[in-house]
Amino acid sequence: MNESALNSALQAIVGEEHVLYSAADLAAYAYDATPLYRSVPTVVVFPGCTAEVRAVLELATARQVPVIPRGHATNLSGGTIAINGGIMLVMTRLNRIMEIDAANLTATLQPGVTTAALAKEADARGLFYPPDPGSQVVSTLGGNVAENAGGLRGLKYGVTRDYVMGLEAVLPSGEIIRTGGKNAKDVAGYDLTRLLVGSEGTLAVITEITVKLIPKPETKRACLAIFDDLQQAARTVARIIENRIIPCTLEYMDQGTIQAVEEFAHVGLPTDCEALLFIEQDGPAAVVDADIELAGEICREEGARELKVAATPEEGTKLAEARRFALSALARLRPTTVLEDATVPRSHLAEMVRFINEVAVKYNLRICTFGHAGDGNLHPTCLTDERDHEEIERVEQAFAEIFDKAIALGGTITGEHGVGLGKQNYLEWKVGHAGIEVMRRLKAAFDPANILNPGKVLPTATRKRLVVKQG
Amino acid sequence: MNESALNSALQAIVGEEHVLYSAADLAAYAYDATPLYRSVPTVVVFPGCTAEVRAVLELATARQVPVIPRGHATNLSGGTIAINGGIMLVMTRLNRIMEIDAANLTATLQPGVTTAALAKEADARGLFYPPDPGSQVVSTLGGNVAENAGGLRGLKYGVTRDYVMGLEAVLPSGEIIRTGGKNAKDVAGYDLTRLLVGSEGTLAVITEITVKLIPKPETKRACLAIFDDLQQAARTVARIIENRIIPCTLEYMDQGTIQAVEEFAHVGLPTDCEALLFIEQDGPAAVVDADIELAGEICREEGARELKVAATPEEGTKLAEARRFALSALARLRPTTVLEDATVPRSHLAEMVRFINEVAVKYNLRICTFGHAGDGNLHPTCLTDERDHEEIERVEQAFAEIFDKAIALGGTITGEHGVGLGKQNYLEWKVGHAGIEVMRRLKAAFDPANILNPGKVLPTATRKRLVVKQG
Repeated sequence: MNESALNSALQAIVGEEHVLYSAADLAAYAYDATPLYRSVPTVVVFPGCTAEVRAVLELATARQVPVIPRGHATNLSGGTIAINGGIMLVMTRLNRIMEIDAANLTATLQPGVTTAALAKEADARGLFYPPDPGSQVVSTLGGNVAENAGGLRGLKYGVTRDYVMGLEAVLPSGEIIRTGGKNAKDVAGYDLTRLLVGSEGTLAVITEITVKLIPKPETKRACLAIFDDLQQAARTVARIIENRIIPCTLEYMDQGTIQAVEEFAHVGLPTDCEALLFIEQDGPAAVVDADIELAGEICREEGARELKVAATPEEGTKLAEARRFALSALARLRPTTVLEDATVPRSHLAEMVRFINEVAVKYNLRICTFGHAGDGNLHPTCLTDERDHEEIERVEQAFAEIFDKAIALGGTITGEHGVGLGKQNYLEWKVGHAGIEVMRRLKAAFDPANILNPGKVLPTATRKRLVVKQG
Repeated sequence: MNESALNSALQAIVGEEHVLYSAADLAAYAYDATPLYRSVPTVVVFPGCTAEVRAVLELATARQVPVIPRGHATNLSGGTIAINGGIMLVMTRLNRIMEIDAANLTATLQPGVTTAALAKEADARGLFYPPDPGSQVVSTLGGNVAENAGGLRGLKYGVTRDYVMGLEAVLPSGEIIRTGGKNAKDVAGYDLTRLLVGSEGTLAVITEITVKLIPKPETKRACLAIFDDLQQAARTVARIIENRIIPCTLEYMDQGTIQAVEEFAHVGLPTDCEALLFIEQDGPAAVVDADIELAGEICREEGARELKVAATPEEGTKLAEARRFALSALARLRPTTVLEDATVPRSHLAEMVRFINEVAVKYNLRICTFGHAGDGNLHPTCLTDERDHEEIERVEQAFAEIFDKAIALGGTITGEHGVGLGKQNYLEWKVGHAGIEVMRRLKAAFDPANILNPGKVLPTATRKRLVVKQG
């Protein structure tokens, strides 16, 4: 099938105005939020309903054309790059919240709804959708499900997976499956719902999502602590958990990140300190007050140089600015920002951060680290320039060492960003040869013709481990 | 391979004393907690380590002998019946808790550890493992994971799936995979961890489990309300949730169950009432008190005839007796107790209970219903006699109607007991033809030779729906 015939067939399915194929339009869909990856699709299609998704997939399977499903493409793993061309299937027209069911505490919606839109609708009814990926204002629920998106509230509230109750999805064959539903308990057959969560658009195209909502916490309160020494901050995190406090947010920023934020936003942070913790708790007022007071006391006992405790939720939002500005502040320092998410069990936080700093020195790179200290999900962020191929090679070497170390500490190569293109050749380090082979067979069970987001997640070649350690 | 050669080969792997094959021994492993199913295995094997499990599976694959993994066989779906003979692989020697990691809030253990033993070890460290299936005193964690066991705390705390963070498992080929780990966030590849949870021993043999623990709630408190009318109880459940209270336990018993409990245990329940609710909340004392007081007020407003509010946790335990005795009280009334677990979204609770009562009348059966009102997980329990084939045929007809109705209400054929043998021919009603086909391909991806618990979960023939409704 030549391109023009493909475009006509797609226009017949979704309507002329929902198919793009000019060079300028294709260029706009050649990238996602991940640096270093660019590849133009053959055509961009915006389906308006499940039946159209089905027809597109039937066509693609018949013609052996790759299909790359995406929402607003905020992913950070190259997961929505059309590496072999193909149909970019943009799900953003499917943006209706069909139902907020207050009796069953569920919401049912289309995949193109943004995370923030869902959170707002839930909030208006006194309900709460906790997952809050960094891109929540633009990211879509379909993308969140495909990537099993995390966020700042993972420690207490879990990730997207923990809220997805049911899905409608179209298989590459065009067959439609419905998994799960509104039932809090459901063990009818293999758990296809959670298998599709985090499958990065490689198994099926998600066309409808039912999520769990929970009652909105009564209030929240925050504090911010500044430490001269990383070890003090790490001990503080450990002692908060030991004291049986599970804050809704427990964020860490290193010196480089603090300096960048201060330079960018002038929020009044001392630039000679080694670590910052932002701690927030939500829930009933009495519990929140007790937890934040105890957390503050622990910060002081562990030697915090400065401790700011918010008296109101608004003051807390102000304190959160430092953390919220982190990525934007870092991103303006160099042309290219490589944001990674190596993750370790919480108890290894300090060791991992120290290792990242050593690696940065070794490869002469600027790597700043911030992230979700409570769940060990760190974002070592390398400030570089993709035009400098020699430096990019050093960046890759450095991250290979970081992933290797994360695995040696019982951690993982990706906590919340996904494998996509960026980490597929590291995946075997985490899941082993037998794990890769099972995943290949799973992929074939859903997509025997390999038309759905081909070339993602599963390795094309496994990277040699630099340092082989007994994990 | 004849049986004697098979037994010798197995003895060489696990040691003579860990292989049983006398007729008397085999008879003891011919059943599980499910009535109506009996079938003797060829041989019973007790492996002592992962390497032995591997060797048994390699042998079984080479010789095409079925392997049925089990713990203490408390499942209620016929999931561990050796329908075609084969090796009954009893995992109870693997009963060590290797680690309670208080810093990372995890426990790592072998599959033969009982649920109660894990809960006790966690409790001793001020931690909490919430899933509490009815059989928790004897059920093993391996079985809980294989069945995705639920329990009374599902509404607030979720089910086994929500606590499993990592697994070691042996594939039928003998290959060992390790999934997940101690990381609160981990999106490295397809979610094999949650796919194995609830896979009923058909995909891999679980040899090690890492679960999440949470801080132990400060206190708990309960109340019990008795209603003349089912509708009052259902409205009470709905209003508790509307008021943003998520109790840790919210249990329902119908009149038949109340009568049986009273006759059995003389706990002082009025036998002319239509419904009982047991409501328990845990957490910080102030929250618990406020929630139980408000829940009690709602019970009164909705017309509860009687309301008992426990002043202490001990009084709460006493109030819980009525619910705890339910199954034992019912089980003594007739020779055979068929305990089902059709589940509906919470808002359809009253409609489902009324339908069950109508079906009981229609088929002239005694069906009593109790269960987890908060999560819509009902246990319609039919008191019958398996020797009466004509009555058993009516029992099957009645449950077919009940499953059909549950699905029509957006529910499911099984909330927490699993598909096993008992519901495999209803599975297509819930997941559709395309869903079944995907599941068959998933099974083949793990177990191409079909040696692992063959004949379970996936249908042998799909039962004709009695009433075809638009779900």
